[in-house]
Amino acid sequence: MNLETRVYHLLQPATDDQSRASRLVDLFIIGLIVVSLVMIVLESEPSIRSLAPGLFHGSELIIAVLFLVEYVARVWSIPVEPRYAHPVWGRLRFIMTPMAIIDLLAFAPSLFLGGLVDLRMLRLLRLVRLTRLLKLARYSNAAQHIQRALMRSREELTLSVLLVLILMLIASSLIYAVEHDVQPQWFGTIPRAMWWSVITLTTVGYGDVYPVTVLGRVLAAGIAVLGVGMVALPTGIIGAGFIEEIRRQREDGRRCPHCGEAIEAEDDDD
Amino acid sequence: MNLETRVYHLLQPATDDQSRASRLVDLFIIGLIVVSLVMIVLESEPSIRSLAPGLFHGSELIIAVLFLVEYVARVWSIPVEPRYAHPVWGRLRFIMTPMAIIDLLAFAPSLFLGGLVDLRMLRLLRLVRLTRLLKLARYSNAAQHIQRALMRSREELTLSVLLVLILMLIASSLIYAVEHDVQPQWFGTIPRAMWWSVITLTTVGYGDVYPVTVLGRVLAAGIAVLGVGMVALPTGIIGAGFIEEIRRQREDGRRCPHCGEAIEAEDDDD
Amino acid sequence: MNLETRVYHLLQPATDDQSRASRLVDLFIIGLIVVSLVMIVLESEPSIRSLAPGLFHGSELIIAVLFLVEYVARVWSIPVEPRYAHPVWGRLRFIMTPMAIIDLLAFAPSLFLGGLVDLRMLRLLRLVRLTRLLKLARYSNAAQHIQRALMRSREELTLSVLLVLILMLIASSLIYAVEHDVQPQWFGTIPRAMWWSVITLTTVGYGDVYPVTVLGRVLAAGIAVLGVGMVALPTGIIGAGFIEEIRRQREDGRRCPHCGEAIEAEDDDD
Amino acid sequence: MNLETRVYHLLQPATDDQSRASRLVDLFIIGLIVVSLVMIVLESEPSIRSLAPGLFHGSELIIAVLFLVEYVARVWSIPVEPRYAHPVWGRLRFIMTPMAIIDLLAFAPSLFLGGLVDLRMLRLLRLVRLTRLLKLARYSNAAQHIQRALMRSREELTLSVLLVLILMLIASSLIYAVEHDVQPQWFGTIPRAMWWSVITLTTVGYGDVYPVTVLGRVLAAGIAVLGVGMVALPTGIIGAGFIEEIRRQREDGRRCPHCGEAIEAEDDDD
Repeated sequence: MNLETRVYHLLQPATDDQSRASRLVDLFIIGLIVVSLVMIVLESEPSIRSLAPGLFHGSELIIAVLFLVEYVARVWSIPVEPRYAHPVWGRLRFIMTPMAIIDLLAFAPSLFLGGLVDLRMLRLLRLVRLTRLLKLARYSNAAQHIQRALMRSREELTLSVLLVLILMLIASSLIYAVEHDVQPQWFGTIPRAMWWSVITLTTVGYGDVYPVTVLGRVLAAGIAVLGVGMVALPTGIIGAGFIEEIRRQREDGRRCPHCGEAIEAEDDDD
Repeated sequence: MNLETRVYHLLQPATDDQSRASRLVDLFIIGLIVVSLVMIVLESEPSIRSLAPGLFHGSELIIAVLFLVEYVARVWSIPVEPRYAHPVWGRLRFIMTPMAIIDLLAFAPSLFLGGLVDLRMLRLLRLVRLTRLLKLARYSNAAQHIQRALMRSREELTLSVLLVLILMLIASSLIYAVEHDVQPQWFGTIPRAMWWSVITLTTVGYGDVYPVTVLGRVLAAGIAVLGVGMVALPTGIIGAGFIEEIRRQREDGRRCPHCGEAIEAEDDDD
Repeated sequence: MNLETRVYHLLQPATDDQSRASRLVDLFIIGLIVVSLVMIVLESEPSIRSLAPGLFHGSELIIAVLFLVEYVARVWSIPVEPRYAHPVWGRLRFIMTPMAIIDLLAFAPSLFLGGLVDLRMLRLLRLVRLTRLLKLARYSNAAQHIQRALMRSREELTLSVLLVLILMLIASSLIYAVEHDVQPQWFGTIPRAMWWSVITLTTVGYGDVYPVTVLGRVLAAGIAVLGVGMVALPTGIIGAGFIEEIRRQREDGRRCPHCGEAIEAEDDDD
Repeated sequence: MNLETRVYHLLQPATDDQSRASRLVDLFIIGLIVVSLVMIVLESEPSIRSLAPGLFHGSELIIAVLFLVEYVARVWSIPVEPRYAHPVWGRLRFIMTPMAIIDLLAFAPSLFLGGLVDLRMLRLLRLVRLTRLLKLARYSNAAQHIQRALMRSREELTLSVLLVLILMLIASSLIYAVEHDVQPQWFGTIPRAMWWSVITLTTVGYGDVYPVTVLGRVLAAGIAVLGVGMVALPTGIIGAGFIEEIRRQREDGRRCPHCGEAIEAEDDDD
């Protein structure tokens, strides 16, 4: 295994059978992302930033340099992956992938534009890097269960979001019709009424907007009850997805009561 | 296939095995409904309407004319359907169906009463036309799953709505008894107290009304906990419906891949 | 069948195989209860009562008389039931049952104390008579499903209510410790803090009380997340109860794959 | 059975086959904890404490002495347990266990520091002693079901809490970006915005903080809908855990009542 391959494997999420070093690199990168996010969050609080302004500036530079090193190593070693095998075009194509661009934006501005403009928003792009956590999670059973359960019901979930949107449109139109004369600042137009309807349907209920007429309240009561259904529908769908997932796992290696052969095993070479 | 049959099939929701043209017509009509609804929503916002009042007026006319064309084509071609086979009475009976009346009301006022009266409410009837989306969805597996899961538990869901109504009546009466002297504007009569009880039971909790006496709060705490149950009951029912639905699909024609015997099939006479 | 038996069967909730007359009597009594409740609710609204004060007073008298007739008929015919077979003691014992006392309280005050004192609260006892609806529902499949699903998980549900109470006590104590100096009117004592904790744990969130210190908010955030768990736990329990219920029904008449005999059929006399 | 063993068994949670005396001791200790907690809660309410200040002071002393007696008996008899068999070091090691320290802190301050300092917080440590309830519950079927159902899905639940934290961080950062100029007191920094995001994602919605800009509201609407998903995910996971638990119990030793063959058992060699 040459250096390029070694670096490549160190940077990729470690599987169970890989070296401890690769796991340490994973944890170090994830740790760095989390630390840098915590710094951004804390820095946004003036009372905390004023305690040690130098600390925040210095650590930001160090983190950016470390991200730079990781980025360079990743680009250098990427031809190990067959998709990006060509030493020039493979690397260029990798640099153009969305994840690589986000990786670049996560450190480049801090290094090259530092102090010139307000970079807070750009640095928040590091949030996207947290998806790397999900990559790691890919090797966790629990994450696979959740992912498969959600994937199995993705069509039903999409459809229930669509139902909610239609419901929201109907609710907004009706409450607009009933209340727009009484509370024009909240229900004077349908788009304004949408704020109320989404906050009611999700049962959040801030209480900044609520109907005051009798008819509006009767309507709102009905919509609040439908909002409960809006919680119930995806919950039922997701729950069913999980149960199906558990059942499938259980049946790996389950046998037919008639001939004794395994049923539904993927790797069944009968 | 003569022209009448052709037009009829173009206008009906397309099934998988139908021509691409029929699908395009479906999408065009749905798109038109969505666009016209978005226009109504945006138009209700004065700051947006003032940007281009002519645009809204003009597009409304165009949309109404297109709906008119669709309506005429639909009525003209309906005798293809056996139920409406008679060239005169069949068409008349079709015109009298609720969906056809809604289709008519969705464009006729804009064309014939335009500028005379405020048509916003009438035009919102187009929302009802969105049920056409559901017709399309009838051919989607996910929609069928949701529909069958809900249909299977419809009696239990109806009963839990009834339970909620009784619970609401009891909650309103009790809170009225406890708080009507202290907050007459909110709890002075049982119908007024209902507003509070429905908003609490659905866990929306706007916060415009809440009990202030000790006894009222003890009562409200109990009702809030029951409100959680009110969310839990339909969720459990819907979830069970989905799981049963998944199980049925799985068992339709499920056979052991080795010996060909049906597994867990009802008509299994082993 | 003598008159006593006939009256008795007319007054009992009708089963599927009973006469239409018995069903009509059921519906009439339920209808009377619902009407009288609607009257009480409407009467509590002064603007409605002032429309027709005589109507409310008159209808209340008529309803009370009808309830009196029902009560007398019920007491007279009760010896048909073996438990209350004795003509004197049987009837007396029946009169002393809680349901019979509630039936009596539902009309007696209106008849004998009418106009003397405020009877609204007493008349609300009729709400209890609505449990008769549940008696009717006993013959409905859906009601039996819900009942059996809840009964099956009653221990788990009781335990989760206990967990919630402990959680509420812990949450109240902690928030009291953190916020009682800053907001003594809301968190000055543990019992006061309980109002906040129950409204937060149930995710109702009126917004009349909320922590304002940083520590209080961190605590409240944790409690709100636990509140989501508090919704999830009973929902999961009830859902599992329903699924088990559906499974049991399905397996009535299911056969063993080995010997072909039915499994788990209650009335299996093999 | 010598006295030491007897005392030890009296103090341990009673199993089904143990003496009635041991159960009574269990109930007495639990009852004492509950009473002492109720006293602390009531005492924190000045209007109640002023009714009988002596009562609270006296009962606190009596409860502390009873806890002292229990503690001494427990330490004295602990060598019965093999882990703590050594008469000196065994007892010392037991005294150092967290539960024993909490037991000590639950009464020692009231006895030895009484009247000197405010002990309310220390006495609240008795809440921790309520975990003894859970020990008792270990012998209840329902508690075991809940525990096993939660344990089975603990990885999925942990992961969904992690997802919620990431979601919260993203929501806070976005709303901070959108609203920090308009409402600096609420959204001026990311940590401040977190309060809003957790209260919205859990669908509590106090209504002390809410976005006011159009963009902020669009964002909040999306986050509120995701909040519904945040309720749905753990509910589905817990529900699936319960169903799996019910299934396992059912299949433990499930056999066809006719031929005695195991049905769906893993070790079925047909």
